[in-house]
Amino acid sequence: MENVVVLTPDSKTNQNALEKLAALLRPEMDGVNEVILNRMKSHVHLIPELAGHLINSGGKRLRPLLTIASAHMCGYSGGREIKLAACIEFIHTATLLHDDVVDESDMRRGKPTANIVWNNQASVLVGDYLFSRSFQMVAEDGSIEVVEVLADTSTALSEGEVLQLTATNNIDTSEETYLQVIDAKTAALFAAATRVGGIVAEASDLEKDALQSYGRNLGIAFQLVDDALDYSSTQATMGKAVGDDFKEGKITLPVILAYRRGSDTDKTFWRRTLAERDHQDGDLEKAIKLMNQQGTMVDTIARAKHYGAMAKDALGIFPKGQHRDALIDIVDFCINRAY
Amino acid sequence: MENVVVLTPDSKTNQNALEKLAALLRPEMDGVNEVILNRMKSHVHLIPELAGHLINSGGKRLRPLLTIASAHMCGYSGGREIKLAACIEFIHTATLLHDDVVDESDMRRGKPTANIVWNNQASVLVGDYLFSRSFQMVAEDGSIEVVEVLADTSTALSEGEVLQLTATNNIDTSEETYLQVIDAKTAALFAAATRVGGIVAEASDLEKDALQSYGRNLGIAFQLVDDALDYSSTQATMGKAVGDDFKEGKITLPVILAYRRGSDTDKTFWRRTLAERDHQDGDLEKAIKLMNQQGTMVDTIARAKHYGAMAKDALGIFPKGQHRDALIDIVDFCINRAY
Repeated sequence: MENVVVLTPDSKTNQNALEKLAALLRPEMDGVNEVILNRMKSHVHLIPELAGHLINSGGKRLRPLLTIASAHMCGYSGGREIKLAACIEFIHTATLLHDDVVDESDMRRGKPTANIVWNNQASVLVGDYLFSRSFQMVAEDGSIEVVEVLADTSTALSEGEVLQLTATNNIDTSEETYLQVIDAKTAALFAAATRVGGIVAEASDLEKDALQSYGRNLGIAFQLVDDALDYSSTQATMGKAVGDDFKEGKITLPVILAYRRGSDTDKTFWRRTLAERDHQDGDLEKAIKLMNQQGTMVDTIARAKHYGAMAKDALGIFPKGQHRDALIDIVDFCINRAY
Repeated sequence: MENVVVLTPDSKTNQNALEKLAALLRPEMDGVNEVILNRMKSHVHLIPELAGHLINSGGKRLRPLLTIASAHMCGYSGGREIKLAACIEFIHTATLLHDDVVDESDMRRGKPTANIVWNNQASVLVGDYLFSRSFQMVAEDGSIEVVEVLADTSTALSEGEVLQLTATNNIDTSEETYLQVIDAKTAALFAAATRVGGIVAEASDLEKDALQSYGRNLGIAFQLVDDALDYSSTQATMGKAVGDDFKEGKITLPVILAYRRGSDTDKTFWRRTLAERDHQDGDLEKAIKLMNQQGTMVDTIARAKHYGAMAKDALGIFPKGQHRDALIDIVDFCINRAY
């Protein structure tokens, strides 16, 4: 069966890019889900209950898909990629559990968050558990190179989260600091997901670096679009409320650009709402209006397209084929979520 | 210089057991502190600030001492034990940061906890950072066996903490469940600390298992004494307030025994204070009085001595010498904290 993916800027077709990749890797993704279910188990029942609440909540499994597609593109399909893809998803899930505690979020993927259903304590500890489990699974796999990549990545993840925490409510945060944050908190795990695919395939350093570059740039593009969506999507699309970042005073690119481009009156508005977190009725609507006036939403997506283009070109060294095509289409899928 | 340690049940002399071990391993422990300071660093300044608050707060560095002493007892002093001892301390510190968030503690080692000085969010994330850092350092060391031990351990740690969380306020918790909790949340890391010493020394499986058994039984004894001290020490001795476990409704052995041995009136008291957390003036004093009447404090220490004896005997396969003597004295030091 051929898997020709036709690229269009239409989000419906691009939704299919993810579905097509998942269909292409169906047996392996079934394997990932099986590993996840098996390794979530514990004689302490709260652990699989709480972890399952998030893990079975309809996440896209984008990161494990990237690991498997990367390995297959490099000619490997021996099975190690399945367990390691599950490790990546565990690290991702652990991060989400801790993020929701840190951000005091109450909704994710259209469901109440674990910290709301249970409590912060359980979310912190089950996050620790999943994180530890993933290193256990990597140890079983036996590659110290993978341990190194994942430990570097989880160090970057937490560093990025702390940096974001210190930048919260700081309206003077620069675009550069913002890029550092999203590189560490999001792009690092995408980069690890793809690099690990190359490692199990015993790809050359050149290929592993190319995969990492693809993952990293895709991750930056993904987060830029996510941050734009927080000011434009509906709860139904993202499973979380619009304006969460605004309420929390999180300084993302749409806001950074709007503040810098704004008049003195605008600047006063942004300082009041984001730095001082003094919110009034209609503030979110006004924020969105200002962003559209200043073109900061369009420009955030334009920035995402730049990183998306770099991601696609990084794959240029690999031979054409269905996996490479599918990975390229994933870039468009991630960006076109914005439309 | 000879390092003869004279054992007495006197806490002043036994304080010296720890000091003597630290003196015996001074150059290596200086190395551990240097690695800790170096690897705590981050361009995100909040990380070393917050981590340093706890790491420099006068902890005993008992776990790294165990790793180094174990390695040296097995004839290895090549340097790897220093970095791995620092890993163990990082995992321990990460656990303390998360514990203080979970327990909502406000004092540790006589200082306000990081979650109070900063906030829960930062404590969770810096805990994640230290945890990731430790796996990074193990990856640099290059032994997949050590990765496996530490990943198994941190999985057990979080499992133990979740189990403890689900047992909180459950006055029917059995001694067996309690032992499971302290085995996982405390003894597992002691066991890893000593086993890792054996691994770097390329000790035989028999020796590594003996070291692990020593560490595990020492850890159980240590936690039993800690839980007794929570109902008997002064804030000055432990750096934290007496009665924290009582206030939180944490079900530890002194309470388990007192409840089981108590009259119906006593049982009502324990249910009100621990299960329902309905506290009145004088409740802590009454709890301590009941425990002393039922002999549960003395018996908790007797249990600790049992595990301490097993710890000492586990070392029987190693040749006599200053390291073995020092490790044996550490058992008495841990138990005699109770006096």
